[in-house]
Amino acid sequence: MPIVRVEMLEGRSLEQKRELVAVYTRELARICGCSETSITVVIEDVAKHNWASGGQLLADKKP
Amino acid sequence: MPIVRVEMLEGRSLEQKRELVAVYTRELARICGCSETSITVVIEDVAKHNWASGGQLLADKKP
Amino acid sequence: MPIVRVEMLEGRSLEQKRELVAVYTRELARICGCSETSITVVIEDVAKHNWASGGQLLADKKP
Amino acid sequence: MPIVRVEMLEGRSLEQKRELVAVYTRELARICGCSETSITVVIEDVAKHNWASGGQLLADKKP
Amino acid sequence: MPIVRVEMLEGRSLEQKRELVAVYTRELARICGCSETSITVVIEDVAKHNWASGGQLLADKKP
Amino acid sequence: MPIVRVEMLEGRSLEQKRELVAVYTRELARICGCSETSITVVIEDVAKHNWASGGQLLADKKP
Repeated sequence: MPIVRVEMLEGRSLEQKRELVAVYTRELARICGCSETSITVVIEDVAKHNWASGGQLLADKKP
Repeated sequence: MPIVRVEMLEGRSLEQKRELVAVYTRELARICGCSETSITVVIEDVAKHNWASGGQLLADKKP
Repeated sequence: MPIVRVEMLEGRSLEQKRELVAVYTRELARICGCSETSITVVIEDVAKHNWASGGQLLADKKP
Repeated sequence: MPIVRVEMLEGRSLEQKRELVAVYTRELARICGCSETSITVVIEDVAKHNWASGGQLLADKKP
Repeated sequence: MPIVRVEMLEGRSLEQKRELVAVYTRELARICGCSETSITVVIEDVAKHNWASGGQLLADKKP
Repeated sequence: MPIVRVEMLEGRSLEQKRELVAVYTRELARICGCSETSITVVIEDVAKHNWASGGQLLADKKP
């Protein structure tokens, strides 16, 4: 049932994604009382030139 | 007016997408009584390393 | 796996929603070769004062 | 930066939501190396008559 | 073509929404060279108990 | 707080995106009375073969 969508800057490793979906699925099932098999997690990698905060593209912000 | 968003694993052919958007537009117009020209369908191709079900990335599941 | 999201003006009947999710699930499974049980359809009812086309809220457009 | 969106059946308590957003924020910051203050979590409560799985509205499924 | 989605805390007036969709449509058409009639803007009003920043629900933050 | 999402055909320049996020942030802050630093804008570039209007993929429409 539940769908979790994580939008974040591109560049995270497969290992980070693996751990994130496992922890998010386990904790949502524990807290909200649903089965782990019913949970979908979708990750969206966003490029710096497609994400702005405070009116400025992250691609234009000094690291 | 209506917006339909289809998120699915990447890899479907142009032909499948062509048929899907035609059928989805026709059936939504028929069932919900709106004009076909008012319907937008957006397809999102999701990579296996960005989709998890049951706490596991599809990239890690045996085919 | 696939997630279908339909955003449309509020006011459709339960019967219309019932038929829409059944047809959308059947046709997506047929066209894209996935199982019907793996398909999720989410409907979002949008109020006229929250939807604009051509720069005008639908709540402000003459019927 | 990261935006987490959780869509689930309506009916969870404020307490469950409080715990979920705290855990999701902490774990995302830990796993993906970003600050907790940069993380937004949005919860969408979905009615049973707007969610279908396997072609059937949850409102029509026997509990 | 373009779809703009604005998620913000519930409580904005109809007048604010009217101005926002008009300005957003005009500016997107001007900057990105598309017709105003092709632009859809959808507003999502989010309750304070469904929005968290920094791990805390806005409903729990002191005003 | 507010999150603005713009889905449009791929191909816009970095310059167009830069101007769009600056104008959208400034105008949303002005109209809805929130701080510019609290506003996130995410742009999604959509391919012509993933966008359909009136039941036809844009990739299949004559320019």
